[in-house]
Amino acid sequence: MGSHGHPYAPAELELPGFVPMQLSQGQIVAPYLGASLFVVLAVWLLSGRCRRLSKIDRLLMCWWAFTGLTHIIIEGTFVFSPDFFKRENPTYFDEAMKEYSKGDSRYAARDTATVTVEGITAVLAGPASLLAVYAIASRKSYSHILQFTVCLGQLYGCLVYFITACLDGFNFWASPYHFWAYFVGANSSWIVIPTLIAIRSWKKICLAIGAEKMKRK
Amino acid sequence: MGSHGHPYAPAELELPGFVPMQLSQGQIVAPYLGASLFVVLAVWLLSGRCRRLSKIDRLLMCWWAFTGLTHIIIEGTFVFSPDFFKRENPTYFDEAMKEYSKGDSRYAARDTATVTVEGITAVLAGPASLLAVYAIASRKSYSHILQFTVCLGQLYGCLVYFITACLDGFNFWASPYHFWAYFVGANSSWIVIPTLIAIRSWKKICLAIGAEKMKRK
Repeated sequence: MGSHGHPYAPAELELPGFVPMQLSQGQIVAPYLGASLFVVLAVWLLSGRCRRLSKIDRLLMCWWAFTGLTHIIIEGTFVFSPDFFKRENPTYFDEAMKEYSKGDSRYAARDTATVTVEGITAVLAGPASLLAVYAIASRKSYSHILQFTVCLGQLYGCLVYFITACLDGFNFWASPYHFWAYFVGANSSWIVIPTLIAIRSWKKICLAIGAEKMKRK
Repeated sequence: MGSHGHPYAPAELELPGFVPMQLSQGQIVAPYLGASLFVVLAVWLLSGRCRRLSKIDRLLMCWWAFTGLTHIIIEGTFVFSPDFFKRENPTYFDEAMKEYSKGDSRYAARDTATVTVEGITAVLAGPASLLAVYAIASRKSYSHILQFTVCLGQLYGCLVYFITACLDGFNFWASPYHFWAYFVGANSSWIVIPTLIAIRSWKKICLAIGAEKMKRK
């Protein structure tokens, strides 16, 4: 705990009323990983009942369910809880955000760009991700363009998140460990996976448009 | 000119070294409108030589050429000129940004989120818009998904731009006139037109994917 009564960087950050953490890193990470694994397994098993779905489609459904619930529950709670770090009886989600803030104190500091990106992600990308689960399962014709849309939103959000961190001083982590584990590590899935899905959807869409053009000739 | 040596709001904004404007509003707006009209007319006339292009495609080419050049030239100059308001011999672009800052002083104040959105728009959306002109003219199969991508980027950028303005106090305009003319008026085209194009591309893509599925059945 720094002299300003919180464990975050920069040390001079003012967080009046900060309530020290009550859960350990393991007590925060384990339930998140456990719940995520449960969601992924449940979607994998349920989607196995649809005979016409490929393994890639089923994996995509798992991803969209996991990322949609993360956006809505974890990020949504943060967006609508401006006082999460000073609650006397913090919930699991308050504690999770206090822990993540060690990797990026802009969450505790309520940085405008961070709250904005998280708000767009929670309110728009979250429900759209869950819609993607349904769209893939029902083989809707908007499935690819919807997945592409959410991926693009996630990638734009990450771009804003990282560029604003650079412009604002790039000094928001309590230690190199928190920089690599939280700021880089926890976010990297939302760069790599949306990039891969966006490329796949782009190709599928171009193929379909190309085939339609050939037909018209 | 306020007591802090600049015409912007909030009055207490510090802009040391601010050089008063040398061009009038008319001297800034007229060349922009004139150059834009020239670009639109040139693309309209040139695209008329391609027989297979519909009028909507030709109008879209005009829009993409106009918006691409605006992103690269006007917004690009702003992003890479952090000292635009204190230059002793300001260029036309410096003066244009000083004028626009009357509608949103975050430009002169170099607000992080504003610079970030403008940077992404200038560096990614700008060239991609010009690529869209070529893609439409050459009837590339990626034409719709490319247009959709740029529209989504523009809309995400506008969302970040307006939400951060709300969260940061919503008091960045010198007068109600500048609020309506610059902050709302000048930006509204980049909400309405990308929304319309995105809807159109979404529908075209869904139709092509749907047709491909029918074929496979």
